[in-house]
Amino acid sequence: MKKVVLAYSGGLDTTFCALHLTKDKGYEVHAVLVNTGGFSKEELATIEERAKVLGVSSFNVLDVTKTYYDEVIKYLVFGNVLKNQTYPLSVSAERILQAKSLAEYAKSIGATAVAHGSTGAGNDQVRFDMIFQTILPEAEIITPIRDLKLSREEEIEYLKKHGVSMNFEKAAYSINKGIWGTSVGGKETLTSHQGLPESAFPTQVTASESKDITLEFEQGELRSVQGIRYANPVDAILRVQELAAPYGIGRDIHVGDTIIGIKGRVGFEAAAPLIIIKSHQLLEKHTLTKWQMFWKNQLAEFYGNHLHEGHYLDPVMRNLEAFLADTQTCVSGKVHVSLHPYRFQLVGVESPHDLMSSKFGSYGEMNKGYTADDVKGFTRILGNQTAIFHKVNQNETDHEN
Amino acid sequence: MKKVVLAYSGGLDTTFCALHLTKDKGYEVHAVLVNTGGFSKEELATIEERAKVLGVSSFNVLDVTKTYYDEVIKYLVFGNVLKNQTYPLSVSAERILQAKSLAEYAKSIGATAVAHGSTGAGNDQVRFDMIFQTILPEAEIITPIRDLKLSREEEIEYLKKHGVSMNFEKAAYSINKGIWGTSVGGKETLTSHQGLPESAFPTQVTASESKDITLEFEQGELRSVQGIRYANPVDAILRVQELAAPYGIGRDIHVGDTIIGIKGRVGFEAAAPLIIIKSHQLLEKHTLTKWQMFWKNQLAEFYGNHLHEGHYLDPVMRNLEAFLADTQTCVSGKVHVSLHPYRFQLVGVESPHDLMSSKFGSYGEMNKGYTADDVKGFTRILGNQTAIFHKVNQNETDHEN
Amino acid sequence: MKKVVLAYSGGLDTTFCALHLTKDKGYEVHAVLVNTGGFSKEELATIEERAKVLGVSSFNVLDVTKTYYDEVIKYLVFGNVLKNQTYPLSVSAERILQAKSLAEYAKSIGATAVAHGSTGAGNDQVRFDMIFQTILPEAEIITPIRDLKLSREEEIEYLKKHGVSMNFEKAAYSINKGIWGTSVGGKETLTSHQGLPESAFPTQVTASESKDITLEFEQGELRSVQGIRYANPVDAILRVQELAAPYGIGRDIHVGDTIIGIKGRVGFEAAAPLIIIKSHQLLEKHTLTKWQMFWKNQLAEFYGNHLHEGHYLDPVMRNLEAFLADTQTCVSGKVHVSLHPYRFQLVGVESPHDLMSSKFGSYGEMNKGYTADDVKGFTRILGNQTAIFHKVNQNETDHEN
Amino acid sequence: MKKVVLAYSGGLDTTFCALHLTKDKGYEVHAVLVNTGGFSKEELATIEERAKVLGVSSFNVLDVTKTYYDEVIKYLVFGNVLKNQTYPLSVSAERILQAKSLAEYAKSIGATAVAHGSTGAGNDQVRFDMIFQTILPEAEIITPIRDLKLSREEEIEYLKKHGVSMNFEKAAYSINKGIWGTSVGGKETLTSHQGLPESAFPTQVTASESKDITLEFEQGELRSVQGIRYANPVDAILRVQELAAPYGIGRDIHVGDTIIGIKGRVGFEAAAPLIIIKSHQLLEKHTLTKWQMFWKNQLAEFYGNHLHEGHYLDPVMRNLEAFLADTQTCVSGKVHVSLHPYRFQLVGVESPHDLMSSKFGSYGEMNKGYTADDVKGFTRILGNQTAIFHKVNQNETDHEN
Repeated sequence: MKKVVLAYSGGLDTTFCALHLTKDKGYEVHAVLVNTGGFSKEELATIEERAKVLGVSSFNVLDVTKTYYDEVIKYLVFGNVLKNQTYPLSVSAERILQAKSLAEYAKSIGATAVAHGSTGAGNDQVRFDMIFQTILPEAEIITPIRDLKLSREEEIEYLKKHGVSMNFEKAAYSINKGIWGTSVGGKETLTSHQGLPESAFPTQVTASESKDITLEFEQGELRSVQGIRYANPVDAILRVQELAAPYGIGRDIHVGDTIIGIKGRVGFEAAAPLIIIKSHQLLEKHTLTKWQMFWKNQLAEFYGNHLHEGHYLDPVMRNLEAFLADTQTCVSGKVHVSLHPYRFQLVGVESPHDLMSSKFGSYGEMNKGYTADDVKGFTRILGNQTAIFHKVNQNETDHEN
Repeated sequence: MKKVVLAYSGGLDTTFCALHLTKDKGYEVHAVLVNTGGFSKEELATIEERAKVLGVSSFNVLDVTKTYYDEVIKYLVFGNVLKNQTYPLSVSAERILQAKSLAEYAKSIGATAVAHGSTGAGNDQVRFDMIFQTILPEAEIITPIRDLKLSREEEIEYLKKHGVSMNFEKAAYSINKGIWGTSVGGKETLTSHQGLPESAFPTQVTASESKDITLEFEQGELRSVQGIRYANPVDAILRVQELAAPYGIGRDIHVGDTIIGIKGRVGFEAAAPLIIIKSHQLLEKHTLTKWQMFWKNQLAEFYGNHLHEGHYLDPVMRNLEAFLADTQTCVSGKVHVSLHPYRFQLVGVESPHDLMSSKFGSYGEMNKGYTADDVKGFTRILGNQTAIFHKVNQNETDHEN
Repeated sequence: MKKVVLAYSGGLDTTFCALHLTKDKGYEVHAVLVNTGGFSKEELATIEERAKVLGVSSFNVLDVTKTYYDEVIKYLVFGNVLKNQTYPLSVSAERILQAKSLAEYAKSIGATAVAHGSTGAGNDQVRFDMIFQTILPEAEIITPIRDLKLSREEEIEYLKKHGVSMNFEKAAYSINKGIWGTSVGGKETLTSHQGLPESAFPTQVTASESKDITLEFEQGELRSVQGIRYANPVDAILRVQELAAPYGIGRDIHVGDTIIGIKGRVGFEAAAPLIIIKSHQLLEKHTLTKWQMFWKNQLAEFYGNHLHEGHYLDPVMRNLEAFLADTQTCVSGKVHVSLHPYRFQLVGVESPHDLMSSKFGSYGEMNKGYTADDVKGFTRILGNQTAIFHKVNQNETDHEN
Repeated sequence: MKKVVLAYSGGLDTTFCALHLTKDKGYEVHAVLVNTGGFSKEELATIEERAKVLGVSSFNVLDVTKTYYDEVIKYLVFGNVLKNQTYPLSVSAERILQAKSLAEYAKSIGATAVAHGSTGAGNDQVRFDMIFQTILPEAEIITPIRDLKLSREEEIEYLKKHGVSMNFEKAAYSINKGIWGTSVGGKETLTSHQGLPESAFPTQVTASESKDITLEFEQGELRSVQGIRYANPVDAILRVQELAAPYGIGRDIHVGDTIIGIKGRVGFEAAAPLIIIKSHQLLEKHTLTKWQMFWKNQLAEFYGNHLHEGHYLDPVMRNLEAFLADTQTCVSGKVHVSLHPYRFQLVGVESPHDLMSSKFGSYGEMNKGYTADDVKGFTRILGNQTAIFHKVNQNETDHEN
């Protein structure tokens, strides 16, 4: 019997796949849920229970949260990656890591096929396929929902027919939860002009008093929150999330290019990612040189886009990570942040690597490092080429600007 | 008698310069205040009155607000320029245009010298000198404050000695107001870790109720606010400012590299610039292609930095402007924004150029433009090179990540 | 009867298509040869004769050489575009313009289908389809060779069966000739390690004496050769080709990424393109500022790649062209080149826009523009941030490099 | 007595400095010649002899050729760095490493001053000062030639007066020799339009027969030439130089921006650097992915420029080196090159990492990896956004291009 590893989440689509592959196709189905921080123990227990009813040969949960951090999130922070200056790539990044974990699992148990429940209309199918075809070039990729072009109703009917009982009610919004943010899609996000109502967001705003918090980074990684150091940076992220989520911070709508060329729009809430990225970026403004920041920005934008589009295994991604990691040597220090309902404010930083150190002169005050004459000479030379250009091309530029 | 054009603002430094150049140096001083939107009629009247007392040969106000918009602000909007992802370049942009206007004025009256009141410690001296040495290569550049290394107290003493009476009290914060934002420097901004207190900001928060507003762009330029079209885009900016300023929107602290190599920190409030740039950027996310946005971001970051550092007359700036302007052909439409105390939210857009138009399929739903098989083929080819790379280099990559 | 416009070159594949579409498919076939400078009058006459025998409803030659220059080649020169620092995009650029011309022709005669003879293995199919699906979104795209997966032998058999007589002998190398270069593929280029033999190149080396020639550019465009001005820049290109081709200049092998993800290798000879691009680039080194050259290089590399991959109609291409065109204002002057067997040498330039003008000081000699003290001040400020960085991070950097 | 370390080359300028600092200024002068491969043993012996006559306290030769390779040349090869697509940075790179070695030597002997013989008109002064002020922030930088503004004649007179006898005849061309190339400046290079005569080049062309050579790279570094592996890559470079120099390969004239804003022009001969860089680049075309090459090019251009301008110690340079080094993992294999008088030709490569491996399909032939339908689907999706753009903006784009 052919072994297939199924990316299983317990939702309608993957429940259908599990049953279909077992019953209709005669596969030995190994259902795997790759947890990147979006499932609680209780949820996992429920999912496991149902999986077994569907006749799968095995059900396993791979907890890859730490790997997710080490191989993806860490670099998103190093690069201050916000797609289109907005979105922390909550879902995109997660899918990549899930696909990679599934592929490696499939390899380890000698499966000859992998299956996922993506439709033919979104980004996820591309991300899954891109990873699978690279890590498992010989494996068959099975996508029942995409291939059978099934409607929601048809799937439900099929499941009911086979005696599967689950909550078939369609949620008002499609929610995807992970450690790097929760996406919220549906209704308004299908238009270009409507915002999401308060009720669409899973986390409701319950905090009303402002609160000051302190984040501490070590070589670019968040390691301490409120003075407590976490051995696992994932726990530091969760702590920030716990502190900030009640404020409704980090909510926005992302509009951008899908891999398949059309524009997509999705809401999200991502308190911790936004606070961490913005804090990290502020610390960098104090500790990196001008050109370090320039190139980090240019490269990180590409890194985020390329990741988003499923190119995680292109070796250029490793090269860019090497660059990003190398820039973090001196990105250590504390960042003070104040939390308010629906927003946060960066207050300031403290760092032994702060290049604004008053030891070397403060801006706006003459300092020991140079004289007024130095600046005059500097300016004369700095502008030399432009001045020559205008002298040489007097006639051409007279009528310009 | 040698004619000098003095960049005059009516503050302590330029008042000193006016007197010093007239009395001690025997220049024929032509004081010029270049107004980029930061001065009211009343303020200008007061400044003029004092200027005359100082013995200058002429005092003129050049109102260059529209030129400022046409030659600088417009491109900052096209490029969504926020230096270090934060600062709309309020002061940097203004200085450039002021210097340029002064240089052209000096040329027109045949002055052989130009003077400005910059110290030897900041960015402005570089910006003034860069423009002057290019447009007026033969002119002498006179900078009494920088050259005499005068303290505030020495300047006051000198003015008092010459019978000049003005408010000599030092403001708690140094404020620079213009149409593209107001900067606020002093005390806390001289440290790395402190935020500015509420009271430091010139505009106090008086609005508490949320408000929905609509901005309309035509080929990248803001032309209508709340349904009213403005012949002069400057008036549209002022209208947004009027609506948003009472909310305390657009306040932040900018930390970044000064031209002279040290880090500087300055607070600012810039309600209209922030709302306009973010609205414009959202409209672009709906109307531009992926690579238009990618290159706009890469180029605009350089454009902002180069402007900030006084390189406005480098011909590459004109080339970049040609690029930016050319990207705006289809950036037309309405943006809905909601204003709240201390923050604003982008609600959505309406545009005939919206590439998310549901006529061509919605994200997450199969559309007429392609089939599931198309996506499979797409993915296979898209990932082809990476798959080949991993097959060829199996041994090398097995042990990686 | 359905009208189809067939991209017709008179070769085996398109001859097959013409017959197949007429005889087997019952289309009203309008054969169109888009000439971008690669066909002589005699060749065209022969091709037309044969086309008529095949039963096509019409045969037309679109001479688009000037359009090809205006819409593509001009920008390749402005950008000094050599893919992978080697290849002037001879074929890629040509295909794009051919596809565009065909699409516009199809529109003009109301054809509901377009056909091309590409196989399923190369770049050209993608370029044709990309253009057709954009300009003719409703049209059917017919590709018999790709769809029927026909071998050369099967095509020949089919043609013979239908009484078509032509030279069926396979050439040792596949040659594609156009105004912007001739590609040469086969045998050695299918390996990674072999060069092409002398005999593979269509133009044989007959010149042995060196020759000095002068090219004159006006705003980036080649307009005069050897002192003679050409109304049509295409004629200037042809003149350079005529002068240089006998030297075997501009031969090389291009290795690069195909659109479909595998690496490809192709020989070419392109005397005029190489000489023109390198001459133009030298003139730019004398007339553009540092940052103009930097950004031109960065953008032109992308422009070339994007064109190569068939993205000509992405609006970002128009934006990049606007940038490139804007940089050419002062790129005027003469370039002296010496021709030798198999190589050429850039001798020097003469231009009124030369920024090396000795009027403003020569390199290595002190000039009037600045003093030694200016340079000292300049250096102190220029290196200020790096010096501060090392002071602040003394411990971290002590052990580095 | 104050200790000064003098960058000493034995030429007129540094001979003057040695005497002047000892005799007139009373310094304890430690003359140091930093050899980056440009001096033979005989030359060094002569220089040492003279140095001692001048009364310096010590004379030392620092042979830093290997360090030069490890810290600079290696990355120039990784990045295929040719400034302005032409010049291997022969002199720029050398100066940087010399300055760094001098600064470290000065630190090690507790010198409180460093001296160099640069004039006030060139790039070298900036490079020396930039490195010294960063590594030795407390040290005095002494530049007698620059400060005294001495003419050649005045220096000679001074030396003669003090009984120094050396060859005072001015060479027709100023030559700077190092392992990464020899620069040739003077006469023609001071104009824009003249080339250098044959006789200006130190190495004369003596070879007339073509020769095939093979270079082998390991992870981006040249390690073997003609099948012989060199423990020290420097020896591999020297071997290539020995083979190629008699052909007059790698001669050209570099025109570019000096650090001080004017344009400069200098001839050079650099057979080994050109052959090695071009061979390395060809190997990369076979072994790197599309985006690895794209980003390498963009970053390497900046790396070269920043190095050229003396910013070697900006930490961004280390970050870029980390990126470049990380891209070299699979850049291993042989490159075949043929040498001819005045030119060389890249024949081909052999590499186990060759992505053109026929195992995965050859370009132009259908391969097992994908079908014609895959490519159709690919193209449909790849061009989706552009097609949508043109549908949405039909009116705007109808009249364009």
